[in-house]
Amino acid sequence: MMKKVKAAISPTREENYPLWYQQVIKAADMAENSEVRGCMVIKPWGYTLWENIQKNLDVMFKETGHENAYFPLFIPKSFFEKEAEHVEGFAKECAVVTHSRLEDDGKGGLKPAGKLTEELIVRPTSETIIGASFSKWVKSYRDLPLLINQWANVVRWEMRTRLFLRTTEFLWQEGHTVHETKEDALEETFKMLNVYVVFAEKFLAIPVIKGEKTESERFPGAVSTFSIEAMMQDKKALQSGTSHFLGLNFARASNIKFQNKEGCEEYAWTTSWGVSTRLIGALIMAHSDDNGLVLPPRIAPLHVVIIPIYRDKNEHKEVMGFIDQLTKKMKSLRFDDNKIRVKVDDRDMRGGEKLWEWIKKGVPIRLEIGPRDIESNSVFMGRRDKQPNEKQSMNSDKFLKNITSILEEIQNNIFQRALQLRDENTMNIDKKDEFYNFFTPKNKKNPEIHGGFANSHWCGSSDCEEKIKNDLKVTIRCIPLEAEKEKGKCIYCGKESDKRVLFAKAY
Amino acid sequence: MMKKVKAAISPTREENYPLWYQQVIKAADMAENSEVRGCMVIKPWGYTLWENIQKNLDVMFKETGHENAYFPLFIPKSFFEKEAEHVEGFAKECAVVTHSRLEDDGKGGLKPAGKLTEELIVRPTSETIIGASFSKWVKSYRDLPLLINQWANVVRWEMRTRLFLRTTEFLWQEGHTVHETKEDALEETFKMLNVYVVFAEKFLAIPVIKGEKTESERFPGAVSTFSIEAMMQDKKALQSGTSHFLGLNFARASNIKFQNKEGCEEYAWTTSWGVSTRLIGALIMAHSDDNGLVLPPRIAPLHVVIIPIYRDKNEHKEVMGFIDQLTKKMKSLRFDDNKIRVKVDDRDMRGGEKLWEWIKKGVPIRLEIGPRDIESNSVFMGRRDKQPNEKQSMNSDKFLKNITSILEEIQNNIFQRALQLRDENTMNIDKKDEFYNFFTPKNKKNPEIHGGFANSHWCGSSDCEEKIKNDLKVTIRCIPLEAEKEKGKCIYCGKESDKRVLFAKAY
Repeated sequence: MMKKVKAAISPTREENYPLWYQQVIKAADMAENSEVRGCMVIKPWGYTLWENIQKNLDVMFKETGHENAYFPLFIPKSFFEKEAEHVEGFAKECAVVTHSRLEDDGKGGLKPAGKLTEELIVRPTSETIIGASFSKWVKSYRDLPLLINQWANVVRWEMRTRLFLRTTEFLWQEGHTVHETKEDALEETFKMLNVYVVFAEKFLAIPVIKGEKTESERFPGAVSTFSIEAMMQDKKALQSGTSHFLGLNFARASNIKFQNKEGCEEYAWTTSWGVSTRLIGALIMAHSDDNGLVLPPRIAPLHVVIIPIYRDKNEHKEVMGFIDQLTKKMKSLRFDDNKIRVKVDDRDMRGGEKLWEWIKKGVPIRLEIGPRDIESNSVFMGRRDKQPNEKQSMNSDKFLKNITSILEEIQNNIFQRALQLRDENTMNIDKKDEFYNFFTPKNKKNPEIHGGFANSHWCGSSDCEEKIKNDLKVTIRCIPLEAEKEKGKCIYCGKESDKRVLFAKAY
Repeated sequence: MMKKVKAAISPTREENYPLWYQQVIKAADMAENSEVRGCMVIKPWGYTLWENIQKNLDVMFKETGHENAYFPLFIPKSFFEKEAEHVEGFAKECAVVTHSRLEDDGKGGLKPAGKLTEELIVRPTSETIIGASFSKWVKSYRDLPLLINQWANVVRWEMRTRLFLRTTEFLWQEGHTVHETKEDALEETFKMLNVYVVFAEKFLAIPVIKGEKTESERFPGAVSTFSIEAMMQDKKALQSGTSHFLGLNFARASNIKFQNKEGCEEYAWTTSWGVSTRLIGALIMAHSDDNGLVLPPRIAPLHVVIIPIYRDKNEHKEVMGFIDQLTKKMKSLRFDDNKIRVKVDDRDMRGGEKLWEWIKKGVPIRLEIGPRDIESNSVFMGRRDKQPNEKQSMNSDKFLKNITSILEEIQNNIFQRALQLRDENTMNIDKKDEFYNFFTPKNKKNPEIHGGFANSHWCGSSDCEEKIKNDLKVTIRCIPLEAEKEKGKCIYCGKESDKRVLFAKAY
């Protein structure tokens, strides 16, 4: 029987989910609030996750024909104003640059000087500034499709911020494409949505639902917005990526025209799509447990950490010699197309302390190796998808032979666990009182915890949507693309509906 | 005898060097000015060079123990003011954010609103904002050294801008490190300077001189600044990377203290070092010729471009079949640790037009393959380090066998050519009139062209330095680290000096 181990993270998920989230980030040393309002500092362990997200997504973008480029951080106010809904959506929360230098204020301090003739907005998203370039680049149908991606920082002056989930400045990628026909642009919109689905499920081990946003949640200026939605462990939804079909709206605003095959000039069809450092928040909340971060191997900064166990200098030398051999062999192996990422933690600290540090950081495989293990040519393995004290001795050759399948198994287990959570907490609900009950927290100590995802009928009226939001803080996360047509009645007003939509509380 | 081919770039280097530079960038489709004052758009061909610079430098940073992190874009004015020389150096050219939203101005437009209580500066460099984090992270000597790097965008409100060389916004990396002792910090300063030397010479094929900056060119707030300096083809110097020993200045400003081994609290020693998208400007100006960009293979977006030659559908099919086989084999080979980067250009355009496009883009190897080449199982190869019409037929198996050595040879040729240019245009000058004559342009049509680099004695006085600058626009680029002690007399005032310094006109 396993000994019951005290959780490393306090409070636990059950005790206080929002605070648990913060503590997981702190315990894994991933990020912290900066002294600049709403901006975070991404520390190395958190940043490596972003690097791994970038690396793998970038390959998928390039395989689908996209190229990276870089556009200005600043957007002249007049560009920003060109698309009415767009500016309406972003004007309330943007950083405005008004001056180009500081000068002596006569009181020993500095004051802004060099007032700009036109204010500059720090990009909250780049449709309008990239559109200005695209209008010059696109001349003929031969220039299309134009498939560009940018990795960048953006700023949105958010009122309430939360590490990774919502910060004033965040890192992201934004794809911007131009097409000859509506069909081509729609195909691109769905293609990139599917890239996000594959990435979320295969790399982040997060099962997602893809669907269309309702009008109230649409990207400002888009014709239609599609998203992927994931369930976190508090059963709330987290929007994890969006892909927008922009129709002709931004082409009109930025004057992106091309000469078609018939020699006539027409506006082009555009799309945009993005994911951000928010994905790291999703990763944390989807998988971590009361002992800290749990990382899927495909995205983990390290696959394996090795902790030498020894009592004296002689043992240390012997143990390190064995470990050197083992790591050399390990590093020559590959998981997918990547070398095995292994670290030997030989710091002068107690072994237990080290072990817990790596548990809290979510490393998939921990190996403890001491003289007795060497004697039997074995390693003592702990896995992050299992309990901390559920360890296993394994012949070291067998370990090397199986390392990729162990990593694959951990990746799958993490995905399956998330899928199971979602399945267990998703219901088809057809009665209004049942719906209201589902979204009412049962545990007064933790009012965040509630039913989960409800697939229910909706008549299509913004009015019903808003009333549900006001009553329950529940919104339509998306109209799932894979939902089948089905006759039913709107969960709020009872009018006819032909499809279920996904209702949930959301981040 | 070779036919004389008209240059693809107009004007040529000889005719108008600054305009030639712009035309090379345009012809290679690397970047363009944006409609935002001083900000550039980096187009895919230019951005891929930045990606390759990042990828290779990042490996070197990690091998030397550094980790990446990310810090806020905005610096509160009060942080910025903490180091007097620092703020003095950057206050004159910084973007100031004063408002957090836009609102209706009553005239159908928008005006800034939500005035901030403290202005935010868009980072021109991050010593002060990173220092705020470091002061929390560093507590004991056990936390040292702290070795952090950031890849980011920065903004300096430059008056005169030039693509890649000087832009209001640019991309860069900035290393920031904290050490226990002065010796450790100095060691780091030199270690990273040497990383830049190796990177510039091995990857960019640009020979550089490393040395210390004089006081007038020192980084604002640094104790000493070291740089690498490269000669461009107009014989001007381009500072291509800097490494700063910051002493205790920024530790004092940001309160970075640690408990030493004796249990006493003391200020820590810090360094910072960076290279930017300016390196792309260096790459262009060091190697390109009158036919456009010339790229060293180690940094080129493509190693090989293949142009199928055919007259009809049947030939097209045959040629593409042969090319498919060849590219498959090529992609399985590696140059250093990278797969061979090859592209088949099968666009519906004239072959000659395509060839010139790739010449202007600087691809190291061009292969033309048509039915006659297939018959003899050969490829028709053009190399960017040779004349455009100097092509060579080669057995295709031999080509595959030799491809890495051909790339290596091209890389070396490009480096040797740059080294030769520098050697031929660097002189030890001991007489003032000779010095003045050296830096006086001989060709009135092209006043930019002059002697080159002069190694001359300097007494150490800022006064002499400034007079030379005023007379000739010539500055001390650096006091070379590898220069030997040698008695001599200051080139300006004739006072005693014990070392030659590097004088040049500079970007």
